[in-house]
Amino acid sequence: MEIGYRPIGIIHSPFTEIEGMPIQPTGASGIRGSVEVFPEFAEGLKDLDGFSHVILLYHFHQVREVKLVVTPFMDPQPRGVFATRAPKRPNPIGLSIVKLLSIEQNVLRVENVDILDGTPLLDIKPYVPEFDHHPADRVGWLARAKGQVRRQKSDSRFR
Amino acid sequence: MEIGYRPIGIIHSPFTEIEGMPIQPTGASGIRGSVEVFPEFAEGLKDLDGFSHVILLYHFHQVREVKLVVTPFMDPQPRGVFATRAPKRPNPIGLSIVKLLSIEQNVLRVENVDILDGTPLLDIKPYVPEFDHHPADRVGWLARAKGQVRRQKSDSRFR
Repeated sequence: MEIGYRPIGIIHSPFTEIEGMPIQPTGASGIRGSVEVFPEFAEGLKDLDGFSHVILLYHFHQVREVKLVVTPFMDPQPRGVFATRAPKRPNPIGLSIVKLLSIEQNVLRVENVDILDGTPLLDIKPYVPEFDHHPADRVGWLARAKGQVRRQKSDSRFR
Repeated sequence: MEIGYRPIGIIHSPFTEIEGMPIQPTGASGIRGSVEVFPEFAEGLKDLDGFSHVILLYHFHQVREVKLVVTPFMDPQPRGVFATRAPKRPNPIGLSIVKLLSIEQNVLRVENVDILDGTPLLDIKPYVPEFDHHPADRVGWLARAKGQVRRQKSDSRFR
C-alpha cells in the first residue's frame, strides 16, 4: 500500500544548512520563520488565527536513507529510531509545535522554528492543550538529557 | 511533487465503525488498543518502552474527499480545516498521543485510543514534555467547547 501526499505549502526559515540548526523548537526560542500555504489551500486557514500555537507536519525532504537504529544528538548510545525524533525514519515526517504570530492571507508568521528552509509542508493542526498536554512521567533515555536540547545543535549525521 | 509513504504497521482498536467513536484521545480515556508494527521495522522500537506516552501518526484511510471548510463536532460554525482536527484534510494525516502500556516484540499495548480499527500507521515518536508542552494561551473557537471533547462522539460526517 502506497500512500501519496502532496505538499500544501513551503516552510521558510533562516536555516539553509542542516549543520548548526536547533534540534527542536525548544532550542529555537525566538527564531522566526514563515509558512507559505499554497493559495489553493488558503481557505482552510480560516479561524486558525485564534490559536496561539500550531502543529506543523512536514516532509524531511533532505533525508535520503532510513535508519532503524540511530545515535541521537543528545546521547552517545544507539537508539531505536521510533524512540527518537531523528529524521531518518521509514516515513520521514517531521513534527514541530510553533508559536503563531499572525496570518496574512496565505502566509503564517511563526516563532520557535527548528525547520530547514524550503521544507515541504504536509499539514497544519491547531495546538490544543486539552488534547496535546499529557502527564508523561517517563521519557526514557531523554531523562538524562533534560535541558540539553536548548543548547544542542545539529550536525550532518542525519543528512 | 508527490510524496510516497508506506504504512509501517496497523492500529487495532475496539472501534470498527466511525459513528460513535471518541473524537480525541481525551475522550477515549481508558480505551485500550494495540499497535502492530510490521516485523521489518521492529528494530526501530528499541528503547521506546522507557516512554510513558507516544505520538502516533497515521493515515485516515476511510477519508474519500478533501474539505477546506468543515463543521466540526464541537461547534455549529463552519471552520477552516487547518483550524480543526477533522480528518478531511488535503493530506489526511491523523495525530494521537496515547499512553504506552507495554511493548512485546513488535506490538505496543496502548491506552486512550481514539483511532479506527485497521488504520495504517505512518510513524511513532516519543512524547517528550520538554518538546511537546507549550503554554498555549489561545485556543480559538475551541475555547467555548472546553470539556465537551470528553463526551462528544463521532457521527458519519467525516466518512
